[in-house]
Amino acid sequence: MSKVGRFINEEREYLIENIYPKRPLKNYLFNEGFIMDVDQFGFGLSKACINKVFRPLIYDHRIAYVKDNDSGEYYDINRNFSKKPFAYHRTRVGMGYHVVESEYNGIQASFALLIPKEGFVEMHQIKLKNVGKGKRSLSLVTYINPNVNISEHQAYTKARYDENLGGLYFAHRPHKRTHEYVDIFYTADEKAVAWALSREAFCGTYGSVNDPEALKQRYLPCDKPIFEPYYAGVMQFDIELNEGEEKVIHFAVGVERNYEECVNLAKKYSNSESFESEIAWQKQLAEGHISTAVIDTEDEYLNTMANIWLKRQMSLGKTWGRVYGKGFRDVLQDITGFVSLDKPLARERLLYTLKHQFINGNAIRMFDPILDHPYQDMGSWIASTILAYLKESGDFSVLDEPVGYYDDSAIEPVFMHLKRSIDFLFDNQGAHGLSLWGGGDWNDSIDSAGLQMIGESVWLSIATVNASRDYLEILEQIEVENKEQIIADVIQKRELLKQNLIKHGLKDGRFIYGINDWGEYVGAEECKEGKVFLNPQTWAAMSDILPLEERRKLMDVVEERLKCPYGYTLQDTPFVTPNDHLGRLTYFEKGVYENGSVYNHGVMFKVVADCVVGRGDNAWNTLKMNRYDNPLNADSGVEPYAVSNMYFGPCAESKVGYAPLSWITGSAGWMYRAIIEFLLGVKPEFYGLRLQPCLPTSWNGAKIKRNFRGVKYDIEFIPGNEFGVFVDGNKIEGNVIPLFEEGSRHTVICNYVKGEMVL
Amino acid sequence: MSKVGRFINEEREYLIENIYPKRPLKNYLFNEGFIMDVDQFGFGLSKACINKVFRPLIYDHRIAYVKDNDSGEYYDINRNFSKKPFAYHRTRVGMGYHVVESEYNGIQASFALLIPKEGFVEMHQIKLKNVGKGKRSLSLVTYINPNVNISEHQAYTKARYDENLGGLYFAHRPHKRTHEYVDIFYTADEKAVAWALSREAFCGTYGSVNDPEALKQRYLPCDKPIFEPYYAGVMQFDIELNEGEEKVIHFAVGVERNYEECVNLAKKYSNSESFESEIAWQKQLAEGHISTAVIDTEDEYLNTMANIWLKRQMSLGKTWGRVYGKGFRDVLQDITGFVSLDKPLARERLLYTLKHQFINGNAIRMFDPILDHPYQDMGSWIASTILAYLKESGDFSVLDEPVGYYDDSAIEPVFMHLKRSIDFLFDNQGAHGLSLWGGGDWNDSIDSAGLQMIGESVWLSIATVNASRDYLEILEQIEVENKEQIIADVIQKRELLKQNLIKHGLKDGRFIYGINDWGEYVGAEECKEGKVFLNPQTWAAMSDILPLEERRKLMDVVEERLKCPYGYTLQDTPFVTPNDHLGRLTYFEKGVYENGSVYNHGVMFKVVADCVVGRGDNAWNTLKMNRYDNPLNADSGVEPYAVSNMYFGPCAESKVGYAPLSWITGSAGWMYRAIIEFLLGVKPEFYGLRLQPCLPTSWNGAKIKRNFRGVKYDIEFIPGNEFGVFVDGNKIEGNVIPLFEEGSRHTVICNYVKGEMVL
Repeated sequence: MSKVGRFINEEREYLIENIYPKRPLKNYLFNEGFIMDVDQFGFGLSKACINKVFRPLIYDHRIAYVKDNDSGEYYDINRNFSKKPFAYHRTRVGMGYHVVESEYNGIQASFALLIPKEGFVEMHQIKLKNVGKGKRSLSLVTYINPNVNISEHQAYTKARYDENLGGLYFAHRPHKRTHEYVDIFYTADEKAVAWALSREAFCGTYGSVNDPEALKQRYLPCDKPIFEPYYAGVMQFDIELNEGEEKVIHFAVGVERNYEECVNLAKKYSNSESFESEIAWQKQLAEGHISTAVIDTEDEYLNTMANIWLKRQMSLGKTWGRVYGKGFRDVLQDITGFVSLDKPLARERLLYTLKHQFINGNAIRMFDPILDHPYQDMGSWIASTILAYLKESGDFSVLDEPVGYYDDSAIEPVFMHLKRSIDFLFDNQGAHGLSLWGGGDWNDSIDSAGLQMIGESVWLSIATVNASRDYLEILEQIEVENKEQIIADVIQKRELLKQNLIKHGLKDGRFIYGINDWGEYVGAEECKEGKVFLNPQTWAAMSDILPLEERRKLMDVVEERLKCPYGYTLQDTPFVTPNDHLGRLTYFEKGVYENGSVYNHGVMFKVVADCVVGRGDNAWNTLKMNRYDNPLNADSGVEPYAVSNMYFGPCAESKVGYAPLSWITGSAGWMYRAIIEFLLGVKPEFYGLRLQPCLPTSWNGAKIKRNFRGVKYDIEFIPGNEFGVFVDGNKIEGNVIPLFEEGSRHTVICNYVKGEMVL
Repeated sequence: MSKVGRFINEEREYLIENIYPKRPLKNYLFNEGFIMDVDQFGFGLSKACINKVFRPLIYDHRIAYVKDNDSGEYYDINRNFSKKPFAYHRTRVGMGYHVVESEYNGIQASFALLIPKEGFVEMHQIKLKNVGKGKRSLSLVTYINPNVNISEHQAYTKARYDENLGGLYFAHRPHKRTHEYVDIFYTADEKAVAWALSREAFCGTYGSVNDPEALKQRYLPCDKPIFEPYYAGVMQFDIELNEGEEKVIHFAVGVERNYEECVNLAKKYSNSESFESEIAWQKQLAEGHISTAVIDTEDEYLNTMANIWLKRQMSLGKTWGRVYGKGFRDVLQDITGFVSLDKPLARERLLYTLKHQFINGNAIRMFDPILDHPYQDMGSWIASTILAYLKESGDFSVLDEPVGYYDDSAIEPVFMHLKRSIDFLFDNQGAHGLSLWGGGDWNDSIDSAGLQMIGESVWLSIATVNASRDYLEILEQIEVENKEQIIADVIQKRELLKQNLIKHGLKDGRFIYGINDWGEYVGAEECKEGKVFLNPQTWAAMSDILPLEERRKLMDVVEERLKCPYGYTLQDTPFVTPNDHLGRLTYFEKGVYENGSVYNHGVMFKVVADCVVGRGDNAWNTLKMNRYDNPLNADSGVEPYAVSNMYFGPCAESKVGYAPLSWITGSAGWMYRAIIEFLLGVKPEFYGLRLQPCLPTSWNGAKIKRNFRGVKYDIEFIPGNEFGVFVDGNKIEGNVIPLFEEGSRHTVICNYVKGEMVL
């Protein structure tokens, strides 16, 4: 494993100490409307989503150059293009902020990035400190690469330095526009002595940001750009620093609808007070999330991930699920994990997401921007998310919230959205009484198996069994018209579906993936490629279709057929023959994505399934195999603080075990729940907190502090000879801690028997 | 004027001798389906147009690195990223080929680029010659940046070195595709000793093509790429060169539908024979074009442009009119100039273009790819093109060719396309009996003045008068049903339109541009902005709406109101207030495009108009002012060998006189015709060649060799006291040389009176 840095848990930071890791290591900064990814240099794309269209603000480059005005030497503090012998270069990956620090030639520099709570704006703070001998005369030159020309004509753009604004103003005035956010500002709380507004004026016609021509002059050119293919935001500040002296400048760069709004945002954000208060807000937000559940196990890395980083990744996902577009099922799953961290925000995002449901109960695959391939599974994710919210919050009022539909003017309470989702799943079945496959299900890449609406998905049928179980749980708690009849109806359909699954879905001792439009079995031994799939087994293990022992046998199949040194592949064997009876996964390179990678989302389903069938050791082994420090796959490139979408499968032609697409995965939410709710087994219920530990036998207990419904529980799991739960010293009946008064704090001891399943 | 190079007319080349001109200087290489722009480094985009979609092949970079295997030193021969002290770097801008040459450290290098007559393929030839002392052991490493990932998933790509193919093979296999051209090959007639297939493997994670990591090793990594965001085509050849020895390698890079087609194309094109024969073909093609008309005037630059370079630019335009999409009116205008150069190809392109006409007579603005804003003027360009073709070729059979429509299944002879175009123009008039403005006319950027189909364009009405004149000329020559009635009808409508123009279009002593949907005058003195427009005056001067003296007065207005030191602005005053009653030109920065630039297309209309009203001195002055060596605008950046779209107007905020968008303009065709047909006045007619010189009074005559209908005419204009034409020594009646036997050659003396108009 290439050493890239270390966790600094007390600061909730990861410190990247290697400027050139195997690949750029990412952080995400975001608010509910604006997002940026940022690497160890502070580079990365920032973008707003406006009118279901991405509106990029900065492409990649943010650079802070420092020039010694006496010697003429210049370099940049964050990328080190000129490869100066820095005393250090390190990056503090923070929760909602990001700081690149370096020292060269007696100047300590820091470049901090932040996205405030609201607004399409980046905040930057740059510090320069003279730690050398003697007074220094410096120029700080800051560069951004703004996305100004957002329409077809670069002739629409005007740009200038604007004294009133306090910086640079870029106005693009297209005649026709998809949205009104056409103005960009880049301002500072210090007056610039010079500036450049176009890339050509700054870099030179044949130059680049690596070594900009303009830095060879004493002052930037203060050009008047016209008809530029590429604009640039560059400001120069002359700074005199005595020995030990430090200079701090605050910047804001943002996008707005007009000049006045730019002025308002610039004034609001390019100053020290707002930078400090926004940093404080971000830290407070993170602390709030962290305090929800703090585990203390024998494994430090597990503690760090569960307590700090998975929460951040879920926080990203609950709004930006999959980042390149908000996925309906993705956001819902991430909310399912996120509900404990911030109930009001989880509620808000849930309601927004449900606006993208169709009146028929299904939903669009992805919104903001739109992806509308006709997947069939969207309805299957709603019940579990609502159930999780209800159990965490006790707030049943959410079911009455009126929410619209994506394709209909009707506005109905959330309960009806839920009901329609389940009805859709039961009403759309094929000849074998299983769920129609349509354009696909969780496996986005089996996208052509059921387009004729003949083929049936076994996995989606299992997911329907599980979703309707969650639905029944909710139904039992509430009053609705015809409740008994609805319940009876769901139970009846559910039982029938289970029977059909056993009859048509079980084959060769496991569940197949489905039967396609052509009547072909998918995921059966008879298949030439793709003989065994992971998800049907794990989801069946999480279900009540089969008795426990048979579910364990399904998990045995997983162990025997899909295990590799760093996890479990999504299927075996990989596809090498393009097959339009299945879909794009057969066109993918083998070992990538749904074609035989170790797809971490699926691996986390597997960890939960292990716990559900009482196999804590398998769950823990899987968690360990799957992480960045697995010595058998120690060079995956993944950020130690983030979960990636996949590891390339063992069947890949090259780069076996490499982990692309970090942060962009449903794994984080599921991993978090796997650890808290299944491995440690601390499960919210409507009227209490259930303890159902499934700890690995190698552990001698574990601890967790959990805030639930305003009550603090200090829980310790202690192995022993008999299961029993003691609250504040008193043994309770069963394993559900009852609700206590808000604000109270309780000590809980949970004795458990190693290796014994808690029912 | 910054010295960038020199013309080498005997080679039909321009030699760029300055590696860093004010801006990259472009050449275009193309066939009828594939096109690339290429600068002095050999960089630029190549793309095919398939199914009305651009399919880029190479983005920008083609680099040839040379490494001395003994010293380890490396550099590139064409871009000189590492800034070695080259003995020379020069670029031969050829007609259909392009060669970058350099010398460093005893190695003369040449990198030649070519697009063959057919196929989506680039051909490269690289020569290395040892001109230093002693034997040299070199590696040649060639790099291209292929556009492999053309769909949404990089997981679809497979790439490898393929021995049978003789190079690199990139296969992208998207599940859904807009076209089948998904395979790229990059091959050579020499076996590579090593290769790289991804940018990361070649450049390094943090490197770039400026200084690729892989060159620091003895051999390229021969990587197995997987899931790469960026592929690369890199091959290494080990070359031993004795003193004086030269090595030549031929490459082909292309896009095809499958492996077998790639093999065929690679075998066909990556070899010496095909390279030499394609070069020979290009040269032959150019000579054929050049020999059509060779002028010999007192002005060397005018000769060079008219004899060589304008023909190349028209050749580009006749297929790729405006390059970023094939414009209907653009291609037609360029064909109008191109007809004399290659009649069969002009015919073919004319027929293809007419396929994009609507059944109502109008046409789509741009095809390949589509731009469908509802412009109203497309029909007005058809008659002049057909007329020019008929006069040049005498081939009336073109009128009977069956051609389909863009929006209808009907297939009709070309004559019906022509008829429908004129009918459309006459049938779509507004309350003042002028042409409806609709979404715009020639002035693409007045695109909102008539969308409600109320506003009327004066310019389009004038263009209709002129188009119908051309139509009548054609009608008189042919037999069609109801001919007399059609002619009478056209004449009547035409006369009425002329009257309406005089009644409603003339204001303040000139023609306005139009009356918009809101009844507002556009281009009148009463307007706050945009008081005088160029084109209505110049087109009226070319028309018969007014008597000669009044047309001359219109041209006086042009001289008084629109002249600037380097041409004539499209209108005055510029727009600074966005105005949705006009359109996007009011949103443009002032001085750019249709908002007050010296728009060269319009300037060439003006030159023709000058000649039509007998003002040869004005025409010649305009041509001189408008060119790259005008000392009053000597730093425009334009290629000396190409015409640009515009010069930024005098009202521009900065960069006044700068000339962006070279090659992409309708100016070349009009400039060519202005010089040949109007200034020298050699005009094809149905039954002869008319001589109507309008030479500047400063000239003491001029000569032109003209091939017309297979006959060679050596024409000399000699100033004297009386106009008269002598063919082979015999004075003819009038000024039309009659047709002679094909293959014959004739000497023509044309006496003319300086400053006297030939009618």
